[in-house]
Amino acid sequence: MSEVAIQDLYPAALAHCYGCGRDNPHGHHVKTYWRQNAGLARFTPLPHHLSFPGFVYGGLIASLVDCHAIGTAAAERVAAAGGDFALGVVPRYVTGSLSVKFLKPTPIGVELELEARVREAGERKSIVEVKVLAAGAVTATGEVVAVRMPESMRTARQAT
Amino acid sequence: MSEVAIQDLYPAALAHCYGCGRDNPHGHHVKTYWRQNAGLARFTPLPHHLSFPGFVYGGLIASLVDCHAIGTAAAERVAAAGGDFALGVVPRYVTGSLSVKFLKPTPIGVELELEARVREAGERKSIVEVKVLAAGAVTATGEVVAVRMPESMRTARQAT
Repeated sequence: MSEVAIQDLYPAALAHCYGCGRDNPHGHHVKTYWRQNAGLARFTPLPHHLSFPGFVYGGLIASLVDCHAIGTAAAERVAAAGGDFALGVVPRYVTGSLSVKFLKPTPIGVELELEARVREAGERKSIVEVKVLAAGAVTATGEVVAVRMPESMRTARQAT
Repeated sequence: MSEVAIQDLYPAALAHCYGCGRDNPHGHHVKTYWRQNAGLARFTPLPHHLSFPGFVYGGLIASLVDCHAIGTAAAERVAAAGGDFALGVVPRYVTGSLSVKFLKPTPIGVELELEARVREAGERKSIVEVKVLAAGAVTATGEVVAVRMPESMRTARQAT
């Protein structure tokens, strides 16, 4: 179980993501917590995050699914290795593909819950399934192929 | 050929979308133009729309794909009916599903081009394929199932 959000354990050079980076002052700051083999996140959309009056914008939902799945992929690897959740040891994943099914309109004005589970985990990539719930009802589901960031890319980014 | 953006022809009651609504002052304002059987859009991400330093956030790319595909689905129907692009006659679609494949990192700091084509068009839904290009190279592809907004939902929203 992680006491802190996975995104708060990413290396500082890789913590600028608009969706979840703690060092992006303009971003959404998605926070993923690892609980009983699942990634959990909560997010309350802002009033302007709408598609039509009363409903949440699908692109925002896709963004939440994306970052939460990537965080869950990382968390699952830490848990599988013994559960030492600490700064610097959380692996960094990038999004290979992202798909979202919108089952029903998601009401705005309530806190959303996201549950993510790793369906397949490998050395190079993991496949993560996500449910988005509003007031207890699943309004969207997502699937993300999370690809382990190549060490070369990680090193290159840290040098910038 | 549309001289104005499709999103600027949506009914006023349905023009608040965070991704593309002209009446959302906080949004991305995606603009889709219809040219030779394709929807075209251009968008320059802001400096904070990043995933890692130097690269565009995937959730933003998903958002651009979403709104541009929805606009293209509407434009194709107008073109198929004779091409009378005018305020109030553009049909409104919602997103049934959205999928994006990230083929390579998308560099930040350049204008992105999005090309969308309707692969299948029907009474109730259309399937739209989207390419995202940065400096001439395709960095991501997307597919959106665009569902015609039910008249009941449209009426309900206009009443709000």
